[in-house]
Amino acid sequence: MKAPDPPPDDGRETGDLPNERLRSGMHRVADRIADYLDSVGESRVVPRVEPGALLESLPESPPREGEDLDRILDDYERLIEPNVTHWNHPGFLAYFGITGSAPGILGEALAAALNVNAMLWRTGPAAVELEERVCDWVRQLVGLPLGFHGHINDTASTSTLVALGAARDARRPEVRRLGLSGGEIPPLVVYASDQAHSSVDKAAMALGLGLQQVRRVASDGAFRMRADELEEAIAVDRAAGREPLAVVATAGTTSTTSVDPLHEIAEICGREGIWLHVDAAYAGPAACLPERREMFRGWERADSIVLNPHKWLFTPIDCSLLFVRDLEGLKRAWSVIPAYLASEESVTNPMDLGFQLGRRFRSLKLWMVLRGFGVSGVQDRIREHCRLANEFASWVDEHPTFERVAPVPFSVVCFRARFGAPEERQNELQRRLLEMVNVAGPVFLSGTELNGRFTLRVAVGNLRTREAHLRTAWDLLVESARRLNEEVGG
Amino acid sequence: MKAPDPPPDDGRETGDLPNERLRSGMHRVADRIADYLDSVGESRVVPRVEPGALLESLPESPPREGEDLDRILDDYERLIEPNVTHWNHPGFLAYFGITGSAPGILGEALAAALNVNAMLWRTGPAAVELEERVCDWVRQLVGLPLGFHGHINDTASTSTLVALGAARDARRPEVRRLGLSGGEIPPLVVYASDQAHSSVDKAAMALGLGLQQVRRVASDGAFRMRADELEEAIAVDRAAGREPLAVVATAGTTSTTSVDPLHEIAEICGREGIWLHVDAAYAGPAACLPERREMFRGWERADSIVLNPHKWLFTPIDCSLLFVRDLEGLKRAWSVIPAYLASEESVTNPMDLGFQLGRRFRSLKLWMVLRGFGVSGVQDRIREHCRLANEFASWVDEHPTFERVAPVPFSVVCFRARFGAPEERQNELQRRLLEMVNVAGPVFLSGTELNGRFTLRVAVGNLRTREAHLRTAWDLLVESARRLNEEVGG
Repeated sequence: MKAPDPPPDDGRETGDLPNERLRSGMHRVADRIADYLDSVGESRVVPRVEPGALLESLPESPPREGEDLDRILDDYERLIEPNVTHWNHPGFLAYFGITGSAPGILGEALAAALNVNAMLWRTGPAAVELEERVCDWVRQLVGLPLGFHGHINDTASTSTLVALGAARDARRPEVRRLGLSGGEIPPLVVYASDQAHSSVDKAAMALGLGLQQVRRVASDGAFRMRADELEEAIAVDRAAGREPLAVVATAGTTSTTSVDPLHEIAEICGREGIWLHVDAAYAGPAACLPERREMFRGWERADSIVLNPHKWLFTPIDCSLLFVRDLEGLKRAWSVIPAYLASEESVTNPMDLGFQLGRRFRSLKLWMVLRGFGVSGVQDRIREHCRLANEFASWVDEHPTFERVAPVPFSVVCFRARFGAPEERQNELQRRLLEMVNVAGPVFLSGTELNGRFTLRVAVGNLRTREAHLRTAWDLLVESARRLNEEVGG
Repeated sequence: MKAPDPPPDDGRETGDLPNERLRSGMHRVADRIADYLDSVGESRVVPRVEPGALLESLPESPPREGEDLDRILDDYERLIEPNVTHWNHPGFLAYFGITGSAPGILGEALAAALNVNAMLWRTGPAAVELEERVCDWVRQLVGLPLGFHGHINDTASTSTLVALGAARDARRPEVRRLGLSGGEIPPLVVYASDQAHSSVDKAAMALGLGLQQVRRVASDGAFRMRADELEEAIAVDRAAGREPLAVVATAGTTSTTSVDPLHEIAEICGREGIWLHVDAAYAGPAACLPERREMFRGWERADSIVLNPHKWLFTPIDCSLLFVRDLEGLKRAWSVIPAYLASEESVTNPMDLGFQLGRRFRSLKLWMVLRGFGVSGVQDRIREHCRLANEFASWVDEHPTFERVAPVPFSVVCFRARFGAPEERQNELQRRLLEMVNVAGPVFLSGTELNGRFTLRVAVGNLRTREAHLRTAWDLLVESARRLNEEVGG
């Protein structure tokens, strides 16, 4: 195997680039990555770029001949890097802040070189077994009992779709073969609070259940699903001949990070025989903190739980962990084995755990992150993010121009400014406030709606974020609100 | 933004690892990747490892304190790398051979550091616009006309699920809201040949159509869907009150890489008003060769086409490109916009193109690959893979102990050995032959079944594969078949 053939007779090169080009290119990339992350806080979070501008600066057609890697990397530095939104910027406080941390970046680079497709155990023994081990590490980290089997998907959207697919199969095994249409199957209903993520709607849509079968259960004043409303909704559906399929309870909703009453919901699901899926995509990792674990009480009775290491466990996107209690049931729901993928080992093959055949080696980066920080390092960092958010919340609470509109169980603060203007103008003014702050550059916030009221959010999740960055955001908010209030004469 | 706070008062470190550790770690990774790919051909393709062995060698629990990156990388080199199946090995000839090429690895490392989630244009302007541009480059590369809009998914399983979801919405827009059950919607039928990929079954299952609604149309002697059988199946379904939804035609089936008669199928779909999805996940890139483009004639009339750069376009997994003709229809099918993701720019937001919200920056690696090799470099490499496969096929054809069982339109050869044994033992002997060859170590082949007969495959797709590696496989096959024939007295 040591002496490969020379290139074919016509002299054209048909291999990969020469190894020395890969090596020098990777070293340049190593420095570029380190330089980028060392200075990312100095640029704007969101680039000042109009839609279509980059498109116009890129050639309309691919080059005829291969180009030098250095030239490509020059263009990367000139055109691409300055025109992304910098998710690793310490001032990124929008949506859910995330971090592609150093150990995770190393892991992702190595995974790209291995290029393992771990669809079967055989096609990536270390990838499959490391995934099993690392998922169990996360299980222990967040204090879930034995009996939960984890595997990694791309996103929480996929994890929830896969989990609800398993729920559908557990409830109505005939659907796998016969489908939902034809009149035998009643509408299958999924319950989630009015604060639950849109991935629940998308999963219901994808699975053929229909958006109308997602029952949005009212939440209480702290944006937690009302258990009494859930019970009533279930009763109404049963009376109407519809079939309750699953409850998606959220631990850490997207708008306010509220936590549904998991214990009560688990009681109801147990009593009614309904699949319980817990969406802990964002907040799940916070269960590693003893002082916050009580908030998750009840999730240990779930049938499935999704938790995204690419959200608050410092792992580069994508990495979504799905725990299920009944691994064999998951396989029954999803496994289809064609002849060209038959294998003889009595092992779990990742391709049987969902609809996707191909599987990246995602556990490598997560393994490196968990080892690089350790359990106590993860705890310290998540605790610090919660502390920062609570610090920010205290500034909001103490300032007469601002009001907080939701509790802060984790690392997200929801708030509004008070404007001396009529109620019907308040939403528009909040939006303008958000825009003014974001246009400035050093921070990036996003908004949401709570009970029809536009609300600003500050979400701490990047490891580079320090109190100074929150202070920058706060100063911009105060100053911008002052100017807006002047304008409206408030 | 230049002077971040010191760590919190208790002295615990709560940031990312120090930048100098990232830098030195990345440089070590750079060398490791180059060394690995320089020597990958010297190891076995599939490691000699028993299920569960790695699991036992990994600590049962995560470490309490963070560990040094060098120690983690030592363990990577000792435990992980030797225990993966080496997809970048020149002797990897199983399934579909793939390559994570040098430019693609660089791109993936950079994407991990940027850690962009391009769910919205705003959250990654360069990522969204580069994706649009690069998908159009691929469109031009393979000679598809204007009017196809490309975007990138993780796998072909996802692309096909998303495409068939769009087909469902185009046919029955009410399903989005009402779902399939309740008796109003007749069974919706998907047609695919008996050679089509299992992802079609999985998509039909996921979408609630049911496996039974996948009509497996018989193929001809060269494993191509029979257009007359397709027409008849459609007529039978219509007569029975079922509703034809989509035809999935394959350009490059998984077992033999046969190409369905796309032109005829497109005619039928046009006449019948049925969505045409073309699965060109593997073979699509070969349409860049003028001498093979005729094989794809008709795909320009498809409603959707999937083509995987992570298969035969030298891009690290995962990267699956879905082209659709009706971009607005795709959005109508899949878009659900919650308040916390509302955006104001009049742009296409990737989250509206499927069920997944989060989107990695996958176009970066593909851009670097297309620039690194150029159109002619891609053509040369794909042409060489086809040449190698045809060379191997000629050895099979010329040897009395072997028989080829399918044409070789691209880079995959299907063949069997002739054993002097009764027909009922032939399949078992082919399996034993495959196992003997794979156990040896330097090459890795996989098998399939064609008309109930177990068949061996040699699939060329890695850029390191040279004629010498095929010769190694061939010598092992000949010698192993000889020994097996001795054993059975043939």
